[in-house]
Amino acid sequence: MIQSVEQAQVDRVDARAIEAVAVAARAAQPQLAAAPGEQRRAALLAAARELRASRAAILEANERDVADAVDLTSAQRDRLRLDDARIEQMAQGVEAVAAQPDVVGRVVDGWTLPNGLRVRRVRVPLGVVGVIYENRPNVTADAAALALASGNAIVLRGSSQALASNRVIRGAIARGVASVGLPEALVGLVEDTSREGARAFMRLEGIIDVLVPRGGPGLLRAVRDEARVPVIIDGDGNCHVYVDRAADLAKAAAIVENAKLQRPGVCNAAETLLVHAAVADEFLPQLAERLGSCELRGDERTRALVPRALPATAADWETEYLAPILAVRVVDTLEDAIAHIRRYSSGHSEAIVTEDLAAATRFTGEVDAAAVLVNASTRFVDGGQLGFGAEIGISTQKLHWRGPMGTEALTSVKLVIWGDGHVRT
Amino acid sequence: MIQSVEQAQVDRVDARAIEAVAVAARAAQPQLAAAPGEQRRAALLAAARELRASRAAILEANERDVADAVDLTSAQRDRLRLDDARIEQMAQGVEAVAAQPDVVGRVVDGWTLPNGLRVRRVRVPLGVVGVIYENRPNVTADAAALALASGNAIVLRGSSQALASNRVIRGAIARGVASVGLPEALVGLVEDTSREGARAFMRLEGIIDVLVPRGGPGLLRAVRDEARVPVIIDGDGNCHVYVDRAADLAKAAAIVENAKLQRPGVCNAAETLLVHAAVADEFLPQLAERLGSCELRGDERTRALVPRALPATAADWETEYLAPILAVRVVDTLEDAIAHIRRYSSGHSEAIVTEDLAAATRFTGEVDAAAVLVNASTRFVDGGQLGFGAEIGISTQKLHWRGPMGTEALTSVKLVIWGDGHVRT
Repeated sequence: MIQSVEQAQVDRVDARAIEAVAVAARAAQPQLAAAPGEQRRAALLAAARELRASRAAILEANERDVADAVDLTSAQRDRLRLDDARIEQMAQGVEAVAAQPDVVGRVVDGWTLPNGLRVRRVRVPLGVVGVIYENRPNVTADAAALALASGNAIVLRGSSQALASNRVIRGAIARGVASVGLPEALVGLVEDTSREGARAFMRLEGIIDVLVPRGGPGLLRAVRDEARVPVIIDGDGNCHVYVDRAADLAKAAAIVENAKLQRPGVCNAAETLLVHAAVADEFLPQLAERLGSCELRGDERTRALVPRALPATAADWETEYLAPILAVRVVDTLEDAIAHIRRYSSGHSEAIVTEDLAAATRFTGEVDAAAVLVNASTRFVDGGQLGFGAEIGISTQKLHWRGPMGTEALTSVKLVIWGDGHVRT
Repeated sequence: MIQSVEQAQVDRVDARAIEAVAVAARAAQPQLAAAPGEQRRAALLAAARELRASRAAILEANERDVADAVDLTSAQRDRLRLDDARIEQMAQGVEAVAAQPDVVGRVVDGWTLPNGLRVRRVRVPLGVVGVIYENRPNVTADAAALALASGNAIVLRGSSQALASNRVIRGAIARGVASVGLPEALVGLVEDTSREGARAFMRLEGIIDVLVPRGGPGLLRAVRDEARVPVIIDGDGNCHVYVDRAADLAKAAAIVENAKLQRPGVCNAAETLLVHAAVADEFLPQLAERLGSCELRGDERTRALVPRALPATAADWETEYLAPILAVRVVDTLEDAIAHIRRYSSGHSEAIVTEDLAAATRFTGEVDAAAVLVNASTRFVDGGQLGFGAEIGISTQKLHWRGPMGTEALTSVKLVIWGDGHVRT
């Protein structure tokens, strides 16, 4: 019964229109895969030019989006809004991706077998990349650029609030693609932004080769329950900073402040601070002062040192605040810190501050996350910061790719085997 | 409604017993991940010794399995049956995996950013590997060896027919693991072999890090519909051999015979032969004679040259026969061959026979499969043949890994970032 109700919902949206966009992208992709790297690069540079040339049209569409948007928080409204500087950043982002070394055709590994067969493992595009995302229109340009650079077609499904902006941005990129003789259908935009449309999208088995869902828990739950296409999860970031007994406390204070407050609303911001008991007395009061208006929620030992800290409950260790709130816990040993992180980490980014090589080595070895950092802010776990040009998301799963996803994350590896009449005996 | 019925079925099997095996494996895995490579290697060598020492017990259990098995084809019965030689092969397979270079901790890539941050991408175990498989008890040993060598715990779920054999084999491997001071729980065996048990197994989200289902279309459909854990699909092999106009026809005949008949019941056997029209007159009659009793199903042009060929229907191009049957089609161009393969390939292994470099280059570039071969039999697409020691399956998906899966396929890559008080500005 449930299935047929669902089916009816899928039918009510125009599932065929969604499928048609993806089918067209799929049909166009072999031409892109066969195109030399310099043609893919030229397409991106032309797309950047078209984005700049479309500045007025993008701003006009974006103004309509912002005016029409209802029920947005001010942070959401800010993410939706474009201005000259953001459009220029978008164009520069596309150029940064074009400047990346070409991943298509890269030989990952190769060997010659005793029987003379020559084996090569070669990077190839995944095929058709699907992205479901929320309000930020710059994702449209970043995702398209990364997909095209790596020989993939892309099907974009942004939010309804950003639809007018996304149409104009997609149009500019498609014109850039067409200007070098490649099919516009390589950059598909799904205009149905309903939940049922999203569900139809994630069931395009055999048409979408990989889906990157970027959104909140509701979207991720729907993907886990409904997706029939392969998925790379861009999940939560419940990131920790652990200040070890051997930490340089000046570095520690700067790193905690940066990880928590430089941009609290993003997934690579820190949510929980763990402090070794041996340095808590000295470190926590000065940190509390430095963090100013940041709300602190501490365990009992923290509250004894920082009177302004509110009591932390069990839920605090699990929460990605995405806000200027920091949970704080005093631990007795490095092992306790690692055990806390093992239990509560969402597998995104985990940092230790220490001058002790053994502690750093143990932490990086035993903490299981997309990224582990020594004496550096979790905020560096970002495609642009790490040198990928941009990112289509940050994977928190272990399969296929972990961490910021640039062009290489959008490839697969094919075995190419050369013989001379070889048969198996 | 459907969900609650399903839930009731899951409850009828002892889902908690299945979960307990996986949870114990997960709890044990960090100890393995922290163990040095030489300890993992010692565990495998001890497991091989224990397998040899358990020869009588394995044979006795296997005799019971074979005697109790009902409704098996002779091929299935053969796959289930063990003898001295097969047990020795099993032990040697474990030793071959132990002899592989260690993948854990291998630095895949690394760079230093302009700000001085040092970035490394390092191979780490996936965590807990689950395998659902059918009658061949040697999979138990191969899969356990590959998982342990790459720092993973494993949970094995074989068929009911092989349960007694699998228990003894698992016991031998677990004793080897324990003999070097590692927990036996690293090698888990699920004794519930019901369909509902399989479904409970594939829903162990957060406990199983990757599931490799090895089985027929029914299992794969269940996995697509029901799995909540990440999956690597070991799918069908509808493999093609294309004999180009520039083929050396002696090599071509040997390769087609080997690809089709050396072992017809396996996924890397060829199912369809495509022959360029320019050489079909000469090649097909001699091939038909050479293939002897192999049934041929041809298009009209084939049948004009090979009277004994039966007429091929559209279904033949889609069928993985797993039997001494070969579909044959004459094509006018290399492009037509590539188009046929694009349409019908299951993405496993595709071969071209040609002396023409341009044709070989185009074929390897444009055919999208886990493996593409030039002048070599598709039968080489196998973990043992390619030098991986063994394989836990052959991936036909594009995400994470394609082709035979050895130890490297059972790893993820973690970013390790070293700084000196770095904060983002």
